[in-house]
Amino acid sequence: MFSRIYIDNSATTPVDPRVLDAMLPFLKEDFGNASSIHHFGQRARAAVDKARHQVASALGARPNEIVFTSGGTESNNLAIRGSIQSLREGRGPDRPHIITSAIEHPAVKNVVEDLEKQGIEVTWLPVYENGVVRFDDVENAIRPETSLISIMHANNEIGTIQPVEEIGRLVKELRSSGQKIWFHTDAVQAFGKIPVNVEDIGCDLLSISAHKVYAPKGIGALYVRRGTRLHPQNLGGRQERGIRGGTEAVPSIVAMGAAAEIVEEQLNTESVRLKELRDRFEDGLAERIEDFEMNGDRQSRLPNISNVSFRRIEGEGLLINLDMQGIAVSTGSACSSGSLEPSPVIRAIGRSDELARGAIRFSFGRMNSEDEIDRLLEQLPKSVNALRQLAPRTRNAK
Amino acid sequence: MFSRIYIDNSATTPVDPRVLDAMLPFLKEDFGNASSIHHFGQRARAAVDKARHQVASALGARPNEIVFTSGGTESNNLAIRGSIQSLREGRGPDRPHIITSAIEHPAVKNVVEDLEKQGIEVTWLPVYENGVVRFDDVENAIRPETSLISIMHANNEIGTIQPVEEIGRLVKELRSSGQKIWFHTDAVQAFGKIPVNVEDIGCDLLSISAHKVYAPKGIGALYVRRGTRLHPQNLGGRQERGIRGGTEAVPSIVAMGAAAEIVEEQLNTESVRLKELRDRFEDGLAERIEDFEMNGDRQSRLPNISNVSFRRIEGEGLLINLDMQGIAVSTGSACSSGSLEPSPVIRAIGRSDELARGAIRFSFGRMNSEDEIDRLLEQLPKSVNALRQLAPRTRNAK
Repeated sequence: MFSRIYIDNSATTPVDPRVLDAMLPFLKEDFGNASSIHHFGQRARAAVDKARHQVASALGARPNEIVFTSGGTESNNLAIRGSIQSLREGRGPDRPHIITSAIEHPAVKNVVEDLEKQGIEVTWLPVYENGVVRFDDVENAIRPETSLISIMHANNEIGTIQPVEEIGRLVKELRSSGQKIWFHTDAVQAFGKIPVNVEDIGCDLLSISAHKVYAPKGIGALYVRRGTRLHPQNLGGRQERGIRGGTEAVPSIVAMGAAAEIVEEQLNTESVRLKELRDRFEDGLAERIEDFEMNGDRQSRLPNISNVSFRRIEGEGLLINLDMQGIAVSTGSACSSGSLEPSPVIRAIGRSDELARGAIRFSFGRMNSEDEIDRLLEQLPKSVNALRQLAPRTRNAK
Repeated sequence: MFSRIYIDNSATTPVDPRVLDAMLPFLKEDFGNASSIHHFGQRARAAVDKARHQVASALGARPNEIVFTSGGTESNNLAIRGSIQSLREGRGPDRPHIITSAIEHPAVKNVVEDLEKQGIEVTWLPVYENGVVRFDDVENAIRPETSLISIMHANNEIGTIQPVEEIGRLVKELRSSGQKIWFHTDAVQAFGKIPVNVEDIGCDLLSISAHKVYAPKGIGALYVRRGTRLHPQNLGGRQERGIRGGTEAVPSIVAMGAAAEIVEEQLNTESVRLKELRDRFEDGLAERIEDFEMNGDRQSRLPNISNVSFRRIEGEGLLINLDMQGIAVSTGSACSSGSLEPSPVIRAIGRSDELARGAIRFSFGRMNSEDEIDRLLEQLPKSVNALRQLAPRTRNAK
């Protein structure tokens, strides 16, 4: 039987059957609006409260610091726009300054660029060859009017982990010396793969997404440290303490709670298991294929992503070839697929056009087995060699 | 056996089993990210495309005019903020003027108030005793710099239908004479109860929500007429033609498509059936209870809402009493529940404090039967009489 292998868990993940079981009653008999006063509403409210505790617990936060959103993108938008708009309403400097990095997800990058067009000053920090922001660069970029630092916890394409704890400590020091400054981190990729604890990080705002941790698409959360003011971006009813209007998406919220609980329970064993799968893959790769480069720091990275640039290969061609063999991988983030430009992340770490175009992200997940890694290792050299024979060296080396 | 009766279908609706069946594969094996290129992504993409056709068809729109959002609230926010921000970017007058009504849902009202605080001029139209905006008032409020009219299709508390088709014609005329003006209507309550066709209405922007039409919470859509420019509010990936970033919520989108198809198929018969249920209720009410007032126009209204003010009764007390008897109703919109203020909608139609506090919304739906109406009619007089005996006339008549 032809069974497909899914090695694109950074794009999205299958729903864990335990998560589906938890949410199903809320797609059936427990359909109430959590804001309704009656029996149906109360059952929905209790379920939302439970999920809020589950998500808070997984992040080391308090339940009333969790705001449910429609996903990581909305969380990032709310964190950045909401805090800057709040500052502009008279609680901060006239011209707030933002520090961010060159490798942020489009849901941060494009929001910051939008604000930049509106006159907000922005410092875009580089990442160098290892794909990691240097803490010194953050420190040197600080100005008296710096109001927001938004640096991701781990990169979505190459998995590199950024120095968020050092930044958290810096921001705390600045704030204790009177500066109105907040630290936001996009932890969408980090959550579920490495420990993500808001106290350890020392962040004020932290974004996560449910569909990266085996829950459905269309739900996410923003951690908002007590005392951090956000101008709501989705105005409506009084849901989510007035920070985010709209009827609570009860089934999805319940699913996210269940997924967060599983993350908390399994993180230690699962991150070791993922690292073993990845190492099995990378060791096998080195034995079987020539002429490739690994992208991103070898140490400071997530346990589940291998980003590999194959020379003399178009990444998209390899993706399609593998897909025909029943193996799903990606060239970069799904959010940018269809783009003809090489990945800005791979470019930011200084790769040539050839290597940027030849990049493939292998992202492993909870449902992957050693056997699947072996099948991947069996197919990959065949596909790479076939494509390299098709494409004359000179054409691709231009 | 004690079976509960749910007469609060304007707050939210149960998921139709056909809708759940349609979405379940996308919570199981078809879990791909619709932006991924591989097999899993293609299946997700095809499902999203199908749903977009289904929603477009139900509204008389083109598929590429449908933008999926996280719900009615986000649709309203995107329509209003997005169009005003787009105009401010140099495609309209320096100081745009908005016309809206006094009985809009908080997801419109609060957004417009937010813009008003930022210096946008707003005309708030009254609704008079019948709960309907007068078209003459709209016409008289038009100024050369009027850029947006946002008037709901049908009110969420009293179900009154607004003169949207006349407004649509007016806006078309103004535009053909060179004015940059758009017409947005919040059709969250109208969709599924009366015909909602974007060509008949002549609107440029129209909001709907899935969970009001027997699909899950957390998904909605905004109709955006071709040529209408919106500044995106959720910036991120290139999803939804760049108007709304964020991984597509595939299972929820599929559910909304299935729900829209059922709406389209059943609307004519279902709206008659709902009207019969409502008339059965209202006729029975008149026979069994004294001292109440019906709120909102008797003719121009949705077939499924009865909003009744009981004299010498606190609405919330009646709601709780009925809930203990297994019957779920509401005092107003769920989004405002917990508020101690009387409903602004009931106040806007000129009701006294006593009548505003005594208002109950009975909203009927697809799952309700004649038998349930009869059980409601049996219990309601008992509950009303019990509460009236508890509360001395003088105390509540103050």
